[in-house]
Amino acid sequence: MCYNIFIVETVCVAWFSLEFTLRFIQDRSKLAFLRHPLNLIDVVAILPYYITLVVDSTSKGEKKLGSGNSYLDKVGLVLRVLRALRILYVMRLARHSLGLQTLGLTARRCTREFGLLLLFLCVAIALYSPLLYLIENEMAATQEFTSIPATYWWAVITMTTVGYGDMVPRSIPGQVVALSSILSGILLMAFPVTSIFHTFSRSYVELKQEQQRVLQRRTHFLLRGRMAGLGSNLSLENDMRFPIRSSDRHD
Amino acid sequence: MCYNIFIVETVCVAWFSLEFTLRFIQDRSKLAFLRHPLNLIDVVAILPYYITLVVDSTSKGEKKLGSGNSYLDKVGLVLRVLRALRILYVMRLARHSLGLQTLGLTARRCTREFGLLLLFLCVAIALYSPLLYLIENEMAATQEFTSIPATYWWAVITMTTVGYGDMVPRSIPGQVVALSSILSGILLMAFPVTSIFHTFSRSYVELKQEQQRVLQRRTHFLLRGRMAGLGSNLSLENDMRFPIRSSDRHD
Amino acid sequence: MCYNIFIVETVCVAWFSLEFTLRFIQDRSKLAFLRHPLNLIDVVAILPYYITLVVDSTSKGEKKLGSGNSYLDKVGLVLRVLRALRILYVMRLARHSLGLQTLGLTARRCTREFGLLLLFLCVAIALYSPLLYLIENEMAATQEFTSIPATYWWAVITMTTVGYGDMVPRSIPGQVVALSSILSGILLMAFPVTSIFHTFSRSYVELKQEQQRVLQRRTHFLLRGRMAGLGSNLSLENDMRFPIRSSDRHD
Amino acid sequence: MCYNIFIVETVCVAWFSLEFTLRFIQDRSKLAFLRHPLNLIDVVAILPYYITLVVDSTSKGEKKLGSGNSYLDKVGLVLRVLRALRILYVMRLARHSLGLQTLGLTARRCTREFGLLLLFLCVAIALYSPLLYLIENEMAATQEFTSIPATYWWAVITMTTVGYGDMVPRSIPGQVVALSSILSGILLMAFPVTSIFHTFSRSYVELKQEQQRVLQRRTHFLLRGRMAGLGSNLSLENDMRFPIRSSDRHD
Repeated sequence: MCYNIFIVETVCVAWFSLEFTLRFIQDRSKLAFLRHPLNLIDVVAILPYYITLVVDSTSKGEKKLGSGNSYLDKVGLVLRVLRALRILYVMRLARHSLGLQTLGLTARRCTREFGLLLLFLCVAIALYSPLLYLIENEMAATQEFTSIPATYWWAVITMTTVGYGDMVPRSIPGQVVALSSILSGILLMAFPVTSIFHTFSRSYVELKQEQQRVLQRRTHFLLRGRMAGLGSNLSLENDMRFPIRSSDRHD
Repeated sequence: MCYNIFIVETVCVAWFSLEFTLRFIQDRSKLAFLRHPLNLIDVVAILPYYITLVVDSTSKGEKKLGSGNSYLDKVGLVLRVLRALRILYVMRLARHSLGLQTLGLTARRCTREFGLLLLFLCVAIALYSPLLYLIENEMAATQEFTSIPATYWWAVITMTTVGYGDMVPRSIPGQVVALSSILSGILLMAFPVTSIFHTFSRSYVELKQEQQRVLQRRTHFLLRGRMAGLGSNLSLENDMRFPIRSSDRHD
Repeated sequence: MCYNIFIVETVCVAWFSLEFTLRFIQDRSKLAFLRHPLNLIDVVAILPYYITLVVDSTSKGEKKLGSGNSYLDKVGLVLRVLRALRILYVMRLARHSLGLQTLGLTARRCTREFGLLLLFLCVAIALYSPLLYLIENEMAATQEFTSIPATYWWAVITMTTVGYGDMVPRSIPGQVVALSSILSGILLMAFPVTSIFHTFSRSYVELKQEQQRVLQRRTHFLLRGRMAGLGSNLSLENDMRFPIRSSDRHD
Repeated sequence: MCYNIFIVETVCVAWFSLEFTLRFIQDRSKLAFLRHPLNLIDVVAILPYYITLVVDSTSKGEKKLGSGNSYLDKVGLVLRVLRALRILYVMRLARHSLGLQTLGLTARRCTREFGLLLLFLCVAIALYSPLLYLIENEMAATQEFTSIPATYWWAVITMTTVGYGDMVPRSIPGQVVALSSILSGILLMAFPVTSIFHTFSRSYVELKQEQQRVLQRRTHFLLRGRMAGLGSNLSLENDMRFPIRSSDRHD
């Protein structure tokens, strides 16, 4: 069964590689092509397969020599992480789904807000964690908070209202600190989430309008093409993809 | 006591069946009637009772023959799932509650957004789960994450900020991955929720206006009816239900 | 110490009773006064003290007779619940806090939305709980879901994203049902929350404007009063409270 | 290693002290300077270092006398809390980050809303906690709710939907109370969060516009400065900081 999966993967990667190479050859400016996020994702999704192939054949050779050194173990670990990146194949769907395109456009437009969200969270964690660690170690009977980094983890889980319950403050001053950290967490998360949402819905409307404009232009071409007696299907396929990409570049 | 419940259920189902049959006979286009969501729910809510009756009488006959085979066990399992669907009787209230009607209308209008929400969630789960599974199995002392599907469950529970706490990452790189998955979960959930909400409130206003228009028309009829000296109560009862159903069809 | 608390409570209740009696005597329509929500809260907050007094003296008499019957235990339980209602003293602050008044006004205006929220939640719980109970009892190794009402509790905790973690589905079909219940829970909660919020902010602005109008009128009176050389402090105290209460009556 | 950290901290504090002293000397009105929030944070962040130095040298002297009294232990505890405040160095970044400045401005403008949120939460906790404590102690078999303050903690964790799961109501009436407390918690949190968000986004836009106006004025000065052949870098550094501070004062 493992062999069958390997065959399926080989066929998929071969197809993706072929398609990627053709698009790379046809594009005019090679540098702009490689700097495009969706193409980068393609590279990151395809490469692990080839690296695995190379390393596997190398390690087989080395294993025959019996040199099971720690260097190979580390390479194996990196390899497994790379294999997990195969999941990025999913992101290739972004080329065809309006929703995923909007998500990508929002992510690029909201880097400032994402940074703000992270900054707020870091400041709040840096304020509450040492305070709670100190209070709990002084006051509480049981010592669940073993170190400051462990308290960072508690602060993250509490401020995002996930609340696993693996670390819980037991002393009353610690619980007061926890209450204020929960409240500030809820408020801090509320700030950028809403502004990111507005960017998302604006981007969605923009992309939809652009798609409809492209669709109309295409229908127009198709009508003219049929009038001129030309089967313009193939050129439309390329035309369809172009305007979205150009909009990505110009924003 | 179990016998009393059976009698109550028999009376209810008999009433529902009668009402359903009458409505089915009176409707002009039988196909459109059967394709209407509310009528489908009626069928799914009534049928299990009859199927249970049939299977019970059959199984009693078979049990006498002593053939306790595994085929009957499977039928029993399906039967129990069908019995759980009796709860759909509740949904029949939708015919009379403006709130539940709005919910149904929103669900039909927002299939695109629901799909988007599921797509986002699936992509994020597919990205974070293998990564966390790998990291935790390499780094952590205790092995709580036994397999990739189990890690999918963890990702769902964490990204929706439910946080049961049955599976918790213990290593520091795993906790960093968990932090990023929580943040992206909160952001992803925020996108379609708000757009679905706008559809809901718009649908609510629309249905309310239509209901008031129907009510005004009815009051108008009632006044004319009284002038003409006719007791038009019965015809109004039927008139009341009609326009809402027609609005469902035309949207 | 218990004796000191009793003295403090006696003084407080005496003061509240006096104030309540005076207001009751001065009001023109006694029925409208008693039907006002804030006055009802006053009655419910003051009464337990007197009932406790009466029951305590009665039970002392009975205890001498040695009749420790189960009837007295039940009275004691009801008494303790009534004592917990003393906390309603806090709600008397509503008379003076704009925020609490807005909350009360919102609650009265949004009864429809609150009902909708409860209806949605009940329907969703009634749909998912039996399904999950059935699946978990068929599939999972451990039997955490002992009964349907216990599964109702699980559904409430999961759909509101609280997630205590005392009951967790273990089988994969159960986890799929849990995922869909979480998603529908988040969406259902989002609907009425936002509409309630809009009512709240509108009510807040309305009450604020009315308060400022009252304040301006009072300042106007004060200036005229000083010109006429009259100390109109006492009448203003009464004037201040009146318009807010009248707005409560007329909405 | 601990010695190296001490050296780094000494250098940092020395630099901060120098900068703070220079700014204090140059400011015209000393009182307004000291009442500014950012300067207060500076004082609170710098002072602990000096207090630690003084106390350490004093305690060394006293330890030689062998007087390990409980007075010193308390001083040590206060000292550790003060040391945890060193984290406020982070807040000094607020001077240069637009996001953190907006956060500060929002916090000053929304004190009313923050108070409202706290008031709502306190009222709800004061209503539900004694009720649940009473019910659980009467009905449930296990006694997880040991006291009223412990139940306050449960109410906070439940109403903010964190849900650690360290305390869970087991009886059915207790679970009904829990459901109503969760619902009111979600609704109460929704009220001020949205209004605070609107203030935040308005403040952000205001600060951004002011910053751009300052930037334009500076560019204008720079151009004139270059025309006049003057290197006006140093004066710009001071000019840059001034308008933001003045806006803080005037709002």
